[in-house]
Amino acid sequence: MANKSVIETVVNLCKRRGLVYPGGEIYGGTRSSWDYGPLGVELKENIKRQWWRHMVTSRPDVVGVDTSVILPRQVWVSSGHVEVFTDPLVESLHTHKRYRADHLIEAYEEKHGHPPANGLADIPDPETGQPGKWTEPKAFSGLLKTFLGPVDDEEGLHYLRPETAQGIFVNFKNVLTSSRMKPPFGIANIGKSFRNEITPGNFIFRTREFEQMEMEFFVKPGEDEQWHQYWIDNRLQWYIDLGIKPENLRLYEHPKEKLSHYSKRTVDVEYAFGFTGSTWGELEGVANRTDYDLRVHAEGSGEDLSYFDQTENERWIPYVIEPAAGLGRAMMAFLVDAYHEDEAPNAKGGVDKRVVLKLDYRLSPVKVAVLPLSKKPELMDVAQNLANELRGLWNVDYDISGAIGRRYRRQDEIGTPFCVTVDFDSLEDKAVTVRERDTMAQERVPLSELNTYLAQRLIGC
Amino acid sequence: MANKSVIETVVNLCKRRGLVYPGGEIYGGTRSSWDYGPLGVELKENIKRQWWRHMVTSRPDVVGVDTSVILPRQVWVSSGHVEVFTDPLVESLHTHKRYRADHLIEAYEEKHGHPPANGLADIPDPETGQPGKWTEPKAFSGLLKTFLGPVDDEEGLHYLRPETAQGIFVNFKNVLTSSRMKPPFGIANIGKSFRNEITPGNFIFRTREFEQMEMEFFVKPGEDEQWHQYWIDNRLQWYIDLGIKPENLRLYEHPKEKLSHYSKRTVDVEYAFGFTGSTWGELEGVANRTDYDLRVHAEGSGEDLSYFDQTENERWIPYVIEPAAGLGRAMMAFLVDAYHEDEAPNAKGGVDKRVVLKLDYRLSPVKVAVLPLSKKPELMDVAQNLANELRGLWNVDYDISGAIGRRYRRQDEIGTPFCVTVDFDSLEDKAVTVRERDTMAQERVPLSELNTYLAQRLIGC
Repeated sequence: MANKSVIETVVNLCKRRGLVYPGGEIYGGTRSSWDYGPLGVELKENIKRQWWRHMVTSRPDVVGVDTSVILPRQVWVSSGHVEVFTDPLVESLHTHKRYRADHLIEAYEEKHGHPPANGLADIPDPETGQPGKWTEPKAFSGLLKTFLGPVDDEEGLHYLRPETAQGIFVNFKNVLTSSRMKPPFGIANIGKSFRNEITPGNFIFRTREFEQMEMEFFVKPGEDEQWHQYWIDNRLQWYIDLGIKPENLRLYEHPKEKLSHYSKRTVDVEYAFGFTGSTWGELEGVANRTDYDLRVHAEGSGEDLSYFDQTENERWIPYVIEPAAGLGRAMMAFLVDAYHEDEAPNAKGGVDKRVVLKLDYRLSPVKVAVLPLSKKPELMDVAQNLANELRGLWNVDYDISGAIGRRYRRQDEIGTPFCVTVDFDSLEDKAVTVRERDTMAQERVPLSELNTYLAQRLIGC
Repeated sequence: MANKSVIETVVNLCKRRGLVYPGGEIYGGTRSSWDYGPLGVELKENIKRQWWRHMVTSRPDVVGVDTSVILPRQVWVSSGHVEVFTDPLVESLHTHKRYRADHLIEAYEEKHGHPPANGLADIPDPETGQPGKWTEPKAFSGLLKTFLGPVDDEEGLHYLRPETAQGIFVNFKNVLTSSRMKPPFGIANIGKSFRNEITPGNFIFRTREFEQMEMEFFVKPGEDEQWHQYWIDNRLQWYIDLGIKPENLRLYEHPKEKLSHYSKRTVDVEYAFGFTGSTWGELEGVANRTDYDLRVHAEGSGEDLSYFDQTENERWIPYVIEPAAGLGRAMMAFLVDAYHEDEAPNAKGGVDKRVVLKLDYRLSPVKVAVLPLSKKPELMDVAQNLANELRGLWNVDYDISGAIGRRYRRQDEIGTPFCVTVDFDSLEDKAVTVRERDTMAQERVPLSELNTYLAQRLIGC
C-alpha cells in the first residue's frame, strides 16, 4: 500500500519534473483540472497507446471510435443522466462549503468500520473538525451545461458529456452497418469527459475534467455473465502486466443494493492509493449494463437498435459489458507504484540516495537519454548526432549539464530505461556505455549495434 | 483543385465506410460536431502521431504539453478573448437565420473579385437567393460558457477554450523551470477546442467542437521574422511530405489591415477544397504573435514571464511564432486529395471501375488486410493466425466475405497499402501473395519473410 507521504512526494516530483502542473496555475488554478507537462503528456499518451493496443488493435473483435463531447441533449435525457445524474449535497453551517453527503458517510464508514449512528450529525466538519452542523441534502446535477447558438435559451442548452460511453451507444447502429462486426464485439472510445464534481481532490484522482478509456462489449443476452467475468479478469491483469504490484490491486464487488440504475453487476478494479480516510481508490469499473442503454436509446430516438442474428434467425437487443477506466487515475497508480528509493554508488566510492521510477519501459516518458561525458565539442558532436538519430525511433533526452552521476539520478527519477554515455574512449572504439535503470548495470555497446541493442530491449514501446 | 462532387463523394464514403458520422445522428445530430468511426479514429490518430513526431519527438527544441479545456476565467480576460472574440452577426429578414457578416462579404469577394459596392445590401440571402435584407450587425461571443460548482452564478462562470494556445502561454514558466529548454524552443499542444460558430458547415471543416494541433515557438525579439519564415516553409512542406499535391496548396498572406489584434504577420496554409463560393480553405495559420500573449498574461497574473539570457546577460519577453493547425481540416484535405478513381482488371479479363484512397501509407487507417482466398477451414486457419500475428505490429483487417476482387476494391477504397492473400498454394509453398494498393502489383512472399517485407515498406507507420 502506498501512503500519504509517497503520494505527496510523487505530486511534488510531478510538478518539479514537468509531469503535471495545476491547471492555469499562474492564475491560481481551477482546483478541478490539471495540465500535463512535457514528461506527463508522453506518459499519458503511452498509457493510452497501451490501452488502445490491448483493447482494440491487437484484437479481432474490438474497433474504436472517437465521439463528440457535445451530443444532442436528448442523448442525456434518454440515458437517464438529466434525471438521475445528481448527487445529494449538504452544506456545512460552519464554513458554508458544500459536500457530497454520500462521500462524507463513506469516509466515516471507512475510518470507523461502521456507518455513523446518527447520520450526518456524527460527522465533523472536514475542514475545521468542529462537530457537524449540516443543511438538509439537496439534489445537485453533475452535468456541466453549455449553450450553442446565439442566445442562452432552452433551445441552445446542451451538456458536456459526463462519460464517453453514450457516444458509443448512439453510434452502435452506424458501426454495425459500416464495419463487418457482429456480437460478441466491442467498441472503444478514449476522450475527455466533464463532471461537476463538488469535491474534486486527491491530485489527478478526482477532477472535473478528466480523460476516460471506455469500451462497450456487445453480447448475446445469456452470454453476458461469462463475458463480464472475462473482462473483469482481463482488466485486472492489464494493470499487473504493465507493472503494478498485484498486492496493491483488488477487485471490489458493488453490493446489489448500491448498483447504478443500469447495472446488473459491477466490479471495480481498485488500487491501494492510501488516501486519508480511504485506502482503496477506483481505477475502473467493469459493469454489466444489460440492454439498458440500447433499449432507452431505441425508445428515445425511434431507431431500431436490435441485432438480427442470421445464423440463429432471431432478433435481440445485445447486452453490454463495460470496462470503463480513468486515465488520470491509471497514471497516478502507475506513478505511485513505480516510485522507489534506493542507493546508487557515487564517484567517491560511497553511495548516494537515489529516487527511481520503475515504470514499465512501455510507459516511460523518455526511453533513452544520451549523455556526453563532458562538454568537449568532439564528445558533444558525436552525442548530438546519436541523439538525433535515435529521436526518429523513440522519445530521447539529451542532457549535458552537471556531473554524470547527477544526470543518471535525473533520468532515474523520471524512469528512463537506458542512459547512453559517450566518453573519450567512444572516439577511439566507436562504442558507448549503456546503463540500465533498475539494475544500474553498464554494458559497452558498439555504435553500429546500438539501435538493435535498444530495439530488442524496448519491444512494444 | 477538388470540386463539390468530389467532396460529396468523400463525405458519403466517410459515412458508408465508418470514417465519420454526424454527431449523435440517431437523435438528428447537433449540426456542429462529427463522430469518428472505426476507420476515422485510426486515420485521425495517425495524423496526430505524424504531427507530434514531426513537431515534437523528432526535434531537440520542442516539447509537448496537454492542457485543460477549462482554465481559470481570468486566462480569457487577459488573452483578450472575453472582449475581442466576438463576431459581427447579421440576421436575414427573409429566413431569420444569423450569419457572420464578414463571411458573407468574403464569399462575395471570392465570387465577384471585388467587395460588394453597397455592402450587405448587395448580398442575397444564401438560402433563398432573395435580394438581401439584413439587420444591423450585432456582436456575438464565440466563447462557450459553462458553470463550475453548485450554482450557475458569476463565481462559477467559466469558458471552454476556443484555442489550445493559451494553455501553453500560461504554462510557459512551468515548462521553463521544469525542463531544460531555452529560447529558441517550442511547446506543442494537441486537443479539443470549442467555438460557438454561428455557421458551422462544410463537413468537418468548420465545427463547434474541433481538435487543434498548435505549437508556440519562443524566440528572441529580432529573430522572430526569420523564425516565422522558417515555420511557414516547414508547415507547408509537412502537407506535401504526407502526400498532398503541391498544386492544391498555397500560402495566403493576411493583409496588414486585417491582422488579428496580437499578430505582426500571419500566413495561412490553404488547400483547394473547392467549396461553393470559395475555392481555398485554411488548413492552418502561421502567426507571429510577438510578445503579446506573454505580456498580457504577465500583467494579468502578476507573474514574471520574461526570460533571462545568461550568455548575453539580458532579460526579454520572448516573441512567439505559432503554427496552429486544425486536425479535422487536415484529415479532410488528406482524404479529398487522396481520392482517385481508376480501373482495375477483373476476373473476366475486363476492367472494373475502382475507387482508391492514395493516402500516404503512414496515414492509412488499415495497413494490412489478410484475405483467405476461400472460406475453406484450412485457409481460414492459416489466414487467421497470420492476421493475429500481424495485429501486434499494425492495424490489420481480416476479411472473408465476397469474391477476392470485391475484397480488393473494399481495401482500395479505404487506402489499405497491402493485401495479403492466403490461397491453396500457401499450404504447400508456405508463401502468400502481397498486392500493393496503387500499382496493384502482386508479389509472392514466403511467410517466413512477410514481417520483414512489410516492415521495410511500412517504415514510419
